Amino acid sequence: MRQLDYFFNPKSVAIIGASHKPEKLGYVIFTNFLGNISERKVYPVNPDTTPILGQKVYRSILQIPDDIDLAVIIIPAKVVPKVLKDCVSKGVKAVIIVSGGFSETGEEGKKLEIKLKHIIEGSQTRVMGPNCLGVFDPYTKVDTLFLSRDRLGRPPTGNIGYISQSGSVGSTILDWLAKEQTGISKFISYENGMDINECDLIEYLADDKKTKVITVFLEGVIDGKRFVKVARKTSNKKPTIILKGGKSKMGRKAVASHTGALAGSAKIYYSVFKQTGLIEANNWEELFDFAKAFSTQPIPKGNRIAIVTNGGGFGVLAVDECEKHGLQTPEPLEKLKNKIKKNIPSYGSLKNPIDLTGDVTAERYRVVLDACLSSNEYDGVIAITLFQVPTLELKITDVLDDMKKHRKPILCCSAGGDFTIKLSRILERNGIPVYQTPGRVASAMASLVKYGEQFNKKKIN
Amino acid sequence: MRQLDYFFNPKSVAIIGASHKPEKLGYVIFTNFLGNISERKVYPVNPDTTPILGQKVYRSILQIPDDIDLAVIIIPAKVVPKVLKDCVSKGVKAVIIVSGGFSETGEEGKKLEIKLKHIIEGSQTRVMGPNCLGVFDPYTKVDTLFLSRDRLGRPPTGNIGYISQSGSVGSTILDWLAKEQTGISKFISYENGMDINECDLIEYLADDKKTKVITVFLEGVIDGKRFVKVARKTSNKKPTIILKGGKSKMGRKAVASHTGALAGSAKIYYSVFKQTGLIEANNWEELFDFAKAFSTQPIPKGNRIAIVTNGGGFGVLAVDECEKHGLQTPEPLEKLKNKIKKNIPSYGSLKNPIDLTGDVTAERYRVVLDACLSSNEYDGVIAITLFQVPTLELKITDVLDDMKKHRKPILCCSAGGDFTIKLSRILERNGIPVYQTPGRVASAMASLVKYGEQFNKKKIN
Repeated sequence: MRQLDYFFNPKSVAIIGASHKPEKLGYVIFTNFLGNISERKVYPVNPDTTPILGQKVYRSILQIPDDIDLAVIIIPAKVVPKVLKDCVSKGVKAVIIVSGGFSETGEEGKKLEIKLKHIIEGSQTRVMGPNCLGVFDPYTKVDTLFLSRDRLGRPPTGNIGYISQSGSVGSTILDWLAKEQTGISKFISYENGMDINECDLIEYLADDKKTKVITVFLEGVIDGKRFVKVARKTSNKKPTIILKGGKSKMGRKAVASHTGALAGSAKIYYSVFKQTGLIEANNWEELFDFAKAFSTQPIPKGNRIAIVTNGGGFGVLAVDECEKHGLQTPEPLEKLKNKIKKNIPSYGSLKNPIDLTGDVTAERYRVVLDACLSSNEYDGVIAITLFQVPTLELKITDVLDDMKKHRKPILCCSAGGDFTIKLSRILERNGIPVYQTPGRVASAMASLVKYGEQFNKKKIN
Repeated sequence: MRQLDYFFNPKSVAIIGASHKPEKLGYVIFTNFLGNISERKVYPVNPDTTPILGQKVYRSILQIPDDIDLAVIIIPAKVVPKVLKDCVSKGVKAVIIVSGGFSETGEEGKKLEIKLKHIIEGSQTRVMGPNCLGVFDPYTKVDTLFLSRDRLGRPPTGNIGYISQSGSVGSTILDWLAKEQTGISKFISYENGMDINECDLIEYLADDKKTKVITVFLEGVIDGKRFVKVARKTSNKKPTIILKGGKSKMGRKAVASHTGALAGSAKIYYSVFKQTGLIEANNWEELFDFAKAFSTQPIPKGNRIAIVTNGGGFGVLAVDECEKHGLQTPEPLEKLKNKIKKNIPSYGSLKNPIDLTGDVTAERYRVVLDACLSSNEYDGVIAITLFQVPTLELKITDVLDDMKKHRKPILCCSAGGDFTIKLSRILERNGIPVYQTPGRVASAMASLVKYGEQFNKKKIN
């Protein structure tokens, strides 16, 4: 068992600052653990030892008659050092400090954080945070998020590993994932990173069997040299997507007052990302969109994309976006054109985008997608499936599902309201990601292509 | 009554090609009109005169014993000329040709379209289309969309006028608007534009009292000189947002096989848009996002934006995006800082973004928003309200509503799942638009600012 495993699968947990009041963070976190009390022992700790929800409360972690794998601390900053000392004495393996009031607040807080560092020096106790949300693991049900399930959904199990230096960026993405029912392997929000930092976490997920793709939101890097080494090693193993906050002048200032990290210049980061093979997301939704693509799709061998659409204008926008993102959208060659010709009405288009028109059927998609994906003219397909048209049958989801046999990436673009969202969920459950706009589907496809190019280059060298 | 009014508020309608089969376009369109049969006479026309849903069917429009304001044509292309001739003989004011198979299909189709032009020459009949969806007017309930309500929602009444050269781009935006319950004044999808084109429609909405903001999706312009004149005149009156499809090399080719329009170079369009004061949307979601902002918000007097947040990382991303979009995000001056200081905990931030932190309350937002909006340091506010935090009470919606008194733009950013969406709808119903990402809220604010700058420049000159 590796040290960091204790954060994700502890046998026993102490909630220090477990509260009696439902509106308190320490109450939410404590109740998160009650669902799995049979497999995992949970001990609330509070100076007020009135039982919480019938559970015995301990005055101090030292009084718990059991070894503790994980302690979660939610108490005012100034009492954290004392409690952390107790954790070290107790031999606790993993500590998550949720409490804020440390290096993110200025000089005094920095001193307090350094004090914490000294406390764990030479011990076997590892710390996540302070000022963090901690972890959520849908496999083991460990959940230290103080955001209740009424307000923040939890995604199902899956293969996307999320590391976030920011609780707000991390948790909102979690909520999106939950809404779209996209599965994750692990979620970690580590904020100040006084002990465990981005490098430790990326390294950990690189070796995590449940994680197929790693996504990272970062404000700053603590150890640049190590980061380069870890990033290079990891992106050779798994696609690793990164969003950097604080790229602008004002953004760098904001980072300083948020996590206290040094944001550094955008250019330096950009060149490090490129050089180490990290996949850069330019914004919040790309972090989410790219992960969905890598989670399910094979890596394409080239950048030649067929756009198959039932909306002409949407096809036009998609081809604009493909060009913007460096994707090639060549016309089908004569032989392929002849193969699909009889399936496309005269008012459609055999060029690229291939326009199946507004009276499209699922069968028309099947013939054309099959032909494009089995030809060696295309490395992947963007299927624009606007479900609003009356002729498109529900079996379109089966048709798309069947296309996976070609082992080339297929990304869908379907914009719209309730009906569209319903069908999109079915597609995504089958492992075909759906994007609402031409811009988002094209940038997701481009992220797959770029990773593939990197990979292919290495094979040639 | 202006000629184009007949499209949006006809007293009598003929549906030529009304069908007996529910899966046919002519059936959907016919049934769209049945809900308002008491105020508006509807006459189905079909060679098979078996009644449809109990309604008498006419063999030809000429046999209808009534004047016809609007005829909707959904029959094969080759028989359209004959039927259009009948419409002219009958003195029909407005004709929507839904049928495809004209200039978008190549030489033969072009000839057929020219034939249609000749037929209406010198008559009082005006034509929308061919190859189009036609119109939807939520005030008069005129709805010629062949996309059924099960699959495509219809937005409520409002003040956004939509003109789209593409049915797919237009209809998906309509579906989004319906889902978000954002109201529109009129929706028009005119595609080939053989008679009524983008210039006619922009001019019409410029004078339409129900329309406060005009949005246009365009693939190409038929009469460049007139377009420049109309665009300049209109954007002086109302914010007019434009998305141009076919800006890329491959996109221009795609436009040719879609609507048959000449897409022209991106540079020319860009300079025309700038010079005439049109607001350019760079993608599908901006067309939607900008419209939401202009629909409800006052035009700012400058570009100094306060970002007020309860998520540090979200604040960092927002300030990055503001800088990218040319917005200023100055720190509050000492006096303003002192005013809000006591309401922000030590682990928050008094800079910009102003970080109210994860234990924010509605009251904390009230004090800080009030101070920022009533100071002369800021021209508008981006309020990042992440509803997942447990301390934020539901009355935050009232607090934001109350801030409208300052007559400065307030745009919200709230990312997340069901709970977030529920609160976002309340805010939007109150006239405060909500965006899911830092990038989208910043670009929407920038669109307001750019329009304001233009406007202010004019006042000075």
